[in-house]
Amino acid sequence: MARRRARTRGQLVTAGRSLVAERGVSGLRVQEITERAGVALGSFYNHFGSKDDLVATIAAETMAELVASAVHGPDDPDTADPGTAREDPAVTAARVVRRVVRLPLVDPGFARLLVHLNHADTPVNGSMAPYARRLLVHGIAAGRFRSPDPESTVTHVVGGAVAMMRRTLAGERGEDDAVTGLDPEALHVAVMLQTLGLDLDDALGVAAGAQRED
Amino acid sequence: MARRRARTRGQLVTAGRSLVAERGVSGLRVQEITERAGVALGSFYNHFGSKDDLVATIAAETMAELVASAVHGPDDPDTADPGTAREDPAVTAARVVRRVVRLPLVDPGFARLLVHLNHADTPVNGSMAPYARRLLVHGIAAGRFRSPDPESTVTHVVGGAVAMMRRTLAGERGEDDAVTGLDPEALHVAVMLQTLGLDLDDALGVAAGAQRED
Repeated sequence: MARRRARTRGQLVTAGRSLVAERGVSGLRVQEITERAGVALGSFYNHFGSKDDLVATIAAETMAELVASAVHGPDDPDTADPGTAREDPAVTAARVVRRVVRLPLVDPGFARLLVHLNHADTPVNGSMAPYARRLLVHGIAAGRFRSPDPESTVTHVVGGAVAMMRRTLAGERGEDDAVTGLDPEALHVAVMLQTLGLDLDDALGVAAGAQRED
Repeated sequence: MARRRARTRGQLVTAGRSLVAERGVSGLRVQEITERAGVALGSFYNHFGSKDDLVATIAAETMAELVASAVHGPDDPDTADPGTAREDPAVTAARVVRRVVRLPLVDPGFARLLVHLNHADTPVNGSMAPYARRLLVHGIAAGRFRSPDPESTVTHVVGGAVAMMRRTLAGERGEDDAVTGLDPEALHVAVMLQTLGLDLDDALGVAAGAQRED
């Protein structure tokens, strides 16, 4: 019974995710989701309190997959936790944030969903903040990051990433830097690393490394 | 004739501003604005392309006043330009950003308007970015700030400030730091100064100075 319940929930998430990818969040209807999932309309509310609840779940699960693949590579998502990675926390942070701010280029539908979530003042930044917080605390403990207040730093870094995504989605992506060869997303990563306390040259070097990994 | 035109425009801005302060942007109607301004409904469109256009104007003008008072004090708004201030650019930036992130505490109606503007993907961050850009360029020229790319830094700083305002408006304001005595807005200012290239101790000192100015 628990397995059937989990399967239904999974079908709803998958159906919701494909509908969101096709045409965004604003026109999404619960009935469409249950039809595509092949489940009864009423059963939706056994799993989710509202449509927004499902959308938040989609965002959180997709972000979790993205962070997992950025932290340890796509092969061992189960162990993905930024707080357990052995590499330089700045390198991890650069890779994660680079993937996030590249979303408008590789998956504009999902990027729009994240930006929309941020709009709606639903658990603000709820889908990104937990990962950012773990990475930050790990990097501070490792002596690599410095922050006057982790909560403020997380707010700033996530808010900056969302603003960068919005700028790209609005068609206002900048150009590669002529001197360093860094693309706009790598330049954003370098700024983010400054926020975490790295000096500019260090930040540029780590951001360039993340760009080379693509 | 030009004077009468400017007066009508000013009446529309004043009426719109008071209506927004009373009950926010979402329920605003052009007819209400013209009624309160005491002008004909049709004349609205001689001055503004749309309701959103008026709202963006209100935000830009109110932000301009806020920046002016933060840069040179309230007495000489005409000369206010962060690029001409003689004081440490970090001190100026700290004061401006502190005023912005304190808006949810001192003027929640206007703070909601700014956050809403950001929502609507209207000229993204259009009401804050120009001031941030001037201040940044001035501070880089003065050797006080460091940035891999001014546009990315502006996006990051403004996005961070909007996220901080949204957090406060959502009732998620943190507590004063027990060690430094800095309030949540000062802690945000310190993080922002790290983004501009200051090291943590320097950032904390400048942020504390801005807090003492209140």
